[in-house]
Amino acid sequence: MGKKLKGIGASEGIAVAKALVLNEEEIKISKTKINDITSEINKLEKAILASVDDLEKLRVSTLDKLGEEKAAIFDAHKQIAADPAMKDEMVSLITNDKVSADFAADKITNNYYEMFASMDDEYFKERSADIKDVANRIIKHILNIKIVDLSTISDEVIIVAEDLTPSQTAQLNKKFVKGFATNIGGRTSHAAIMARSLEIPAVLGLKTITNDVKTNELISLDGKSGIVEIELTDEDIKNYQTASDNFIKEKAELLKFKNEASKTKDGIKKLIEANIGSPIDVNSVIENGGEGIGLFRSEFLYMDNDHFPTEDEQYESYKKVVDAMEGKIVVIRTLDIGGDKKLSYFEFPHEINPFLGYRAIRFTLDRKDIFKDQLRALLRASAHGELGIMFPMIATVDEFLRAKAVVEECKLELKSEGIKYDENVLVGMMVEIPAAAVNADKFSKHADFFSIGTNDLIQYSMAADRMSENVSYLYQPLNPAILKLISLTIEGAHKNNKWVGMCGEMAGDIQALPILVGLGLDAFSMSASSILQARCLMSKITMKEAKELSIKALECQDTDEVIKLVDNFIEGI
Amino acid sequence: MGKKLKGIGASEGIAVAKALVLNEEEIKISKTKINDITSEINKLEKAILASVDDLEKLRVSTLDKLGEEKAAIFDAHKQIAADPAMKDEMVSLITNDKVSADFAADKITNNYYEMFASMDDEYFKERSADIKDVANRIIKHILNIKIVDLSTISDEVIIVAEDLTPSQTAQLNKKFVKGFATNIGGRTSHAAIMARSLEIPAVLGLKTITNDVKTNELISLDGKSGIVEIELTDEDIKNYQTASDNFIKEKAELLKFKNEASKTKDGIKKLIEANIGSPIDVNSVIENGGEGIGLFRSEFLYMDNDHFPTEDEQYESYKKVVDAMEGKIVVIRTLDIGGDKKLSYFEFPHEINPFLGYRAIRFTLDRKDIFKDQLRALLRASAHGELGIMFPMIATVDEFLRAKAVVEECKLELKSEGIKYDENVLVGMMVEIPAAAVNADKFSKHADFFSIGTNDLIQYSMAADRMSENVSYLYQPLNPAILKLISLTIEGAHKNNKWVGMCGEMAGDIQALPILVGLGLDAFSMSASSILQARCLMSKITMKEAKELSIKALECQDTDEVIKLVDNFIEGI
Repeated sequence: MGKKLKGIGASEGIAVAKALVLNEEEIKISKTKINDITSEINKLEKAILASVDDLEKLRVSTLDKLGEEKAAIFDAHKQIAADPAMKDEMVSLITNDKVSADFAADKITNNYYEMFASMDDEYFKERSADIKDVANRIIKHILNIKIVDLSTISDEVIIVAEDLTPSQTAQLNKKFVKGFATNIGGRTSHAAIMARSLEIPAVLGLKTITNDVKTNELISLDGKSGIVEIELTDEDIKNYQTASDNFIKEKAELLKFKNEASKTKDGIKKLIEANIGSPIDVNSVIENGGEGIGLFRSEFLYMDNDHFPTEDEQYESYKKVVDAMEGKIVVIRTLDIGGDKKLSYFEFPHEINPFLGYRAIRFTLDRKDIFKDQLRALLRASAHGELGIMFPMIATVDEFLRAKAVVEECKLELKSEGIKYDENVLVGMMVEIPAAAVNADKFSKHADFFSIGTNDLIQYSMAADRMSENVSYLYQPLNPAILKLISLTIEGAHKNNKWVGMCGEMAGDIQALPILVGLGLDAFSMSASSILQARCLMSKITMKEAKELSIKALECQDTDEVIKLVDNFIEGI
Repeated sequence: MGKKLKGIGASEGIAVAKALVLNEEEIKISKTKINDITSEINKLEKAILASVDDLEKLRVSTLDKLGEEKAAIFDAHKQIAADPAMKDEMVSLITNDKVSADFAADKITNNYYEMFASMDDEYFKERSADIKDVANRIIKHILNIKIVDLSTISDEVIIVAEDLTPSQTAQLNKKFVKGFATNIGGRTSHAAIMARSLEIPAVLGLKTITNDVKTNELISLDGKSGIVEIELTDEDIKNYQTASDNFIKEKAELLKFKNEASKTKDGIKKLIEANIGSPIDVNSVIENGGEGIGLFRSEFLYMDNDHFPTEDEQYESYKKVVDAMEGKIVVIRTLDIGGDKKLSYFEFPHEINPFLGYRAIRFTLDRKDIFKDQLRALLRASAHGELGIMFPMIATVDEFLRAKAVVEECKLELKSEGIKYDENVLVGMMVEIPAAAVNADKFSKHADFFSIGTNDLIQYSMAADRMSENVSYLYQPLNPAILKLISLTIEGAHKNNKWVGMCGEMAGDIQALPILVGLGLDAFSMSASSILQARCLMSKITMKEAKELSIKALECQDTDEVIKLVDNFIEGI
């Protein structure tokens, strides 16, 4: 048996191939004062143009290989590279401080990098990786350092590197690159996201893999367990090849479920839908046979912007998704800003516990002007398909009624203006605050549907921020108390003949699915890549056995007991 | 009818008397450089000695009038005045910067003041007022400014002032001072606390009262509604005198309940207990006929200290309370530190949402050394009376079992060392996390009792930090969802024959009491001053009507509906 190295499984799949260790030339920034300002500015301008040119080529090839969604990354990179304000700052620095073009580019891009990296938000943290990627490209052009082109690889290899930038990942050719393993990065880094859409197995965060492995050494990689194995015996190699074949076969099996309806073994119909963050995510929902959008997060319209988006800007985005889904339901959540999500153009009050603070519906009920722009855009989009408006962070019936009254006000306005909308548009709410789950039977008299947001529901119910390392052990989706709150929500909704979806991470969790089916959940909204697996599992379970399982789970004393129970159940299918 | 001014009702009672407006001499700090360093240091030393002398006199007279608890304030003041480190800093400043004694005293005390005032903790904020009070005394002695002595007042007056310091309040003679009204301060300021123990009516935070009123003008004051009325007619005066007489009569009525057992009209026995923060608070519990201590917060032993208190130090404090309560139950909560409560001698990790973070049992389960010191002290104290050990912030059964195992470990140690403890000491838990309320039936197999901490339970259940101004409207004790969680907790406990107390603010809330009786709550723990009123109200309610009320309350849609329901109920008694 070989030697196992443990990292973070970032993209499923198994590979066994020769390692290709990337050793990039070190960038040395020149610190000496320059004399010829004009020449340095020329160098900078040429490098920027060359970078924009590279990125346009990458955009086109990515569009071709991976579609609009992934190509958009390079649209963003082009925008960064060509940003006139950033260039002006670099030119000023060269002119005033007599520094080299590479020094100026490094210094200014670093300022932007630091700003984004220090934000308490996953989305902006990812943007900082984009800035670093573009900055390195510009600096390499200035210094005439060769930019490694991974698209020229023509042997079967597993790439081993410190890190892969978004642009490097986009160049990978699946035919030859069987997998990649890096020292740094995690499940939400761009490299991980790209690996999953390219369906290339990947293990990240291995810390020292570039030292542990040499080029041409035969290694294996399991993107699910996060294991890279070196010093392989012949038997190891054979086993990994078999495992890899099986993985590919199972994947093909799952594809059969793409155009099937989601139902239990005994034919009870459910919906399996997807969560999306922007209109371009719709492609992969359709590719994976999603039966609707259970959660369209509207924040990205606000966060990726320098002003509150206008009614028209929003309408275009919402309409695009509704059109693309061709009559399948699209649930759009109204602005869930505040808490950890900030805007560059609006200052939220400082709070000691932002997760327990001024955010989402608490903010929009206060700022009816901002709320109405969004609601009018949503109503206008409802004329084009099946749309659900969903309010986040509802705690009391009073809040729901106040929010719904603003929808009615917008309807009246649109009617008097002669603008079309769906008079029967669904108006529902997230159930993510414990009080809402407990009071579900009262809310369901007024709300058309619920969607359980398990990420927040679990955090509040356990009083534990899952981002806080010391208490993350309390993030327990299968804790009997969480299951009970979900059960209360479903019972409360069904009492008034309303349906209940779930759009938190738990909805896509294979261990949770049989219990959720048993509790009577109607719709499961997850990341598009989990849909087929969920549909497959659902087709193997009868309603009767799921119900029995869920009753037993509610009676368990603690999470470990529930996990044992459900693992046994799944094994027995 | 006169003109009404609205402030914050800080101490109940009604007064009508002539105003005495305090106009204190302004303190002017000298900013010029001095030549004679020795003379300034002498001035400073004399002023400090004179201040300590004043404070000792105040301590003795307060001990005499109000008992140990209030006298302790002046022990603390003496310690501040005589603090050698603070004096050293002042002397250095005089010596090195050639500043006057008053300048040095002002500057150094201000540093301490700022430090305490900026802390996010009510307790430390109050300490800052103490520092300011002592600082002014020292500076006045340096500058030979007369320190107004309120104990010499010999006419019936209502005092009107910018603010009253703790030391001024302690000097008030109830016989002559019928009430006081100030521009600044709130319900938790020292002046408010002193007013309540002196039973002098007080309205604070009137903003401009020192300008609105002149000395010798007849005014009235209602310490419940927070109204001060000026420009009174003869009829007004008569009405206020009648109201004042009625208030005093009702108070005397309540006193009859001091030695009565707490029970409903139809004789169902309940316990009405008190919450305390330190051993000296026990006096007022006994004075108000408390039937036990439902919550002894042990944090103050840790926060008012420069090291983790030793087992012996803790044992002395716990024993003192157990002894004083003479066999009545004393429930002591283990360390609830972290979140907003910090220690000067231990650094907690920085967290984005400390209320959802590393605190209470999550900390002590990690730091068994600290936990065991406390548990051993508690077990030793259990030998002297009826003691309950209570764990805060329990979220999962697993946590409770782990904490209880540490108690068992300590018992074994004490047994082998031949040290006495109560083998049957009760081991219970706070129910303040929604998941614990929902899972109550599972916890009650293992815990001997529950105590519902409503302050936190409401915050987590509504996902709203009540200290955050924008969302404090969501702090709704009477929301049907909160009542349902309380109901689940009580049902879950009674299923396994365990009792349930409540130690949050809601337990002392007159509007909540009839519903809580109806839901079957066994013990009500509140601030000592609320006990008699609660006991009186309870004696007027039958269990049957309380049960009917609580069933209706659970069916309400929102908080407003519950409030109307209970107000009607109380009116009908």
